Amino acid sequence: MTDAPSFSTDVAIIGAGPAGLFAAFECGMLKLDCVLLDALDEVGGQCAALYPEKPIFDIPAHPAIEGAALVEALDRQIAPFDVPRLLGRRVERLAGHRGDFVLGTDRGDTIRARAVIIAAGAGAFGPNRPPLAGLEGFEATGAIQYYVRRRADFAGARIVIAGGGDSAVDWALSLKDIAEKIWLVHRRDRFRAAPESLRQLDEAVAAGLIEKIVPFQLHGLHGADGALEGVEVATLDGDTRILPGNRLLPFFGLSTDLGPIAQWGMDSVRSTIPVVPSTCETSLPGVFAVGDVATYPGKLKLILQGFSEGAMAAHAIHPIVRPDTALHFEYSTSKGVPDRG
Amino acid sequence: MTDAPSFSTDVAIIGAGPAGLFAAFECGMLKLDCVLLDALDEVGGQCAALYPEKPIFDIPAHPAIEGAALVEALDRQIAPFDVPRLLGRRVERLAGHRGDFVLGTDRGDTIRARAVIIAAGAGAFGPNRPPLAGLEGFEATGAIQYYVRRRADFAGARIVIAGGGDSAVDWALSLKDIAEKIWLVHRRDRFRAAPESLRQLDEAVAAGLIEKIVPFQLHGLHGADGALEGVEVATLDGDTRILPGNRLLPFFGLSTDLGPIAQWGMDSVRSTIPVVPSTCETSLPGVFAVGDVATYPGKLKLILQGFSEGAMAAHAIHPIVRPDTALHFEYSTSKGVPDRG
Repeated sequence: MTDAPSFSTDVAIIGAGPAGLFAAFECGMLKLDCVLLDALDEVGGQCAALYPEKPIFDIPAHPAIEGAALVEALDRQIAPFDVPRLLGRRVERLAGHRGDFVLGTDRGDTIRARAVIIAAGAGAFGPNRPPLAGLEGFEATGAIQYYVRRRADFAGARIVIAGGGDSAVDWALSLKDIAEKIWLVHRRDRFRAAPESLRQLDEAVAAGLIEKIVPFQLHGLHGADGALEGVEVATLDGDTRILPGNRLLPFFGLSTDLGPIAQWGMDSVRSTIPVVPSTCETSLPGVFAVGDVATYPGKLKLILQGFSEGAMAAHAIHPIVRPDTALHFEYSTSKGVPDRG
Repeated sequence: MTDAPSFSTDVAIIGAGPAGLFAAFECGMLKLDCVLLDALDEVGGQCAALYPEKPIFDIPAHPAIEGAALVEALDRQIAPFDVPRLLGRRVERLAGHRGDFVLGTDRGDTIRARAVIIAAGAGAFGPNRPPLAGLEGFEATGAIQYYVRRRADFAGARIVIAGGGDSAVDWALSLKDIAEKIWLVHRRDRFRAAPESLRQLDEAVAAGLIEKIVPFQLHGLHGADGALEGVEVATLDGDTRILPGNRLLPFFGLSTDLGPIAQWGMDSVRSTIPVVPSTCETSLPGVFAVGDVATYPGKLKLILQGFSEGAMAAHAIHPIVRPDTALHFEYSTSKGVPDRG
């Protein structure tokens, strides 16, 4: 596809989730051009795609902010820099070296960049789906979903929630006030969630708002034409029950995959890329990684660490792009963004 | 003072600026008790004391937020944890060891803590004051100020701004629309400020909104009874001019001082404390440092780095306080804060 658009920029940022968006901001502050690339059709990564309505409590100076609002604020923060976005395309190839890279996408775009920031989060992600007969038919109608995109869609529903971690517990708590009935199915007796959430779960169970079904596993689906009429669960001993739910939310974690990134020659460990902590540079000079995909000793997978890593990467990239310009850099408060007017 | 209040807590946080406030939040999220100590009478550190009305542009997901609003948001974020504050007192003594420290203040308080986080910013801070005869009299009436606490106080004023860095340039730009006249005095021809600010300065000079007085230094003050009538400036060659300003804002930086902290036995380099990057632990086991006071290779003095360091310190402190409890820790979004109700 020789007629595909071709970009030349200082920094190619792969992944437009929170870490990628804020890395673009930090590049802008240092007057580095950049372009944002993402396989999804919108910016925001998992925040936008998986939990737009879920409040996040640990973004500094945001006592509570929902995923979609966080993405919107980050997007507004980079607006002054007019960052080009190449969305809905996957970066498949990386060639070249520090100071001169060429990236190729599955849509045939070619992007030339002096440095690369990988902010790919957990990589390409999708839900771990339970191995149940007839699953696809119920997925097609939305009777089975793996993310709550709109809480209001579950008003009045009889919901079977499966899983033993924070997602299962938090969504059970979040939906208990609008659902007709919630069963919470887990194959063990104990749930593994934040202490405060477990306390709230006990309260909700005592109040009859949530029924715990433990230790049970998903076993079968009942219904026809995509209309779910019951979820069969079973113990390891073979005891079975049919829960008369019309919606099923399995929370068995994300299946993640670095995809082509793993083939670009930098060190990677499972789905993460080791970086030098002070610069976020990977083992491939000129290629940096920030956010959940980046790892180093003591790494915390918090969105706010991704922000801080974006700042470090942008500062480390500055001398690659502008080798002859000393970086004027002072405190946060002494910086300005371009006028929008 | 044996009747002074005495506190026992998990973590003593010295410094209640943004980094200290967010460290308190991270402690709260991990169910660690903490107490905030500050020499100032209010929380917020320099943000609250020096630039409450100055917009900050690089707090993630806040396209622009003023110092006071940032502090207010951080304060609201820790409200669920009911963190005790011991304000208006300076921590003078630190004794003990990892797991069992005793801190003493200049007001006679004794605080027992298992771990300590130093979030002292630049330490005790004050303006560098120009060596001019009669300075104090003009300071007393507010004719000479070192911080703009309320921008509106400068409406219609004839303002001499002195200094060559971001503060001088940014305040000249910020006040140009409400002042009657602004002179910007610097001892060199070139200002050292963000490129975008310099571009705006050139525009404002061209538009006649700001007059650059370079290369000149402050030389004398004219006026009586605290009423400023003129600021005398001189070149190195002895040429002098009198600028008929009635307000003087010298921006010659902060004079900072770690104070007693420097005597507590941990390594320090000028006014900073070296820490292990992945934990923010100082050379004194059990004592951590975050924010501007903490240094390590590649350190950026950004507020957002202070936030990220607070998260790292709190996580590193958890096993000190709860050696027998494995930390349940997942993604940001899977955590909850206590109900306020």
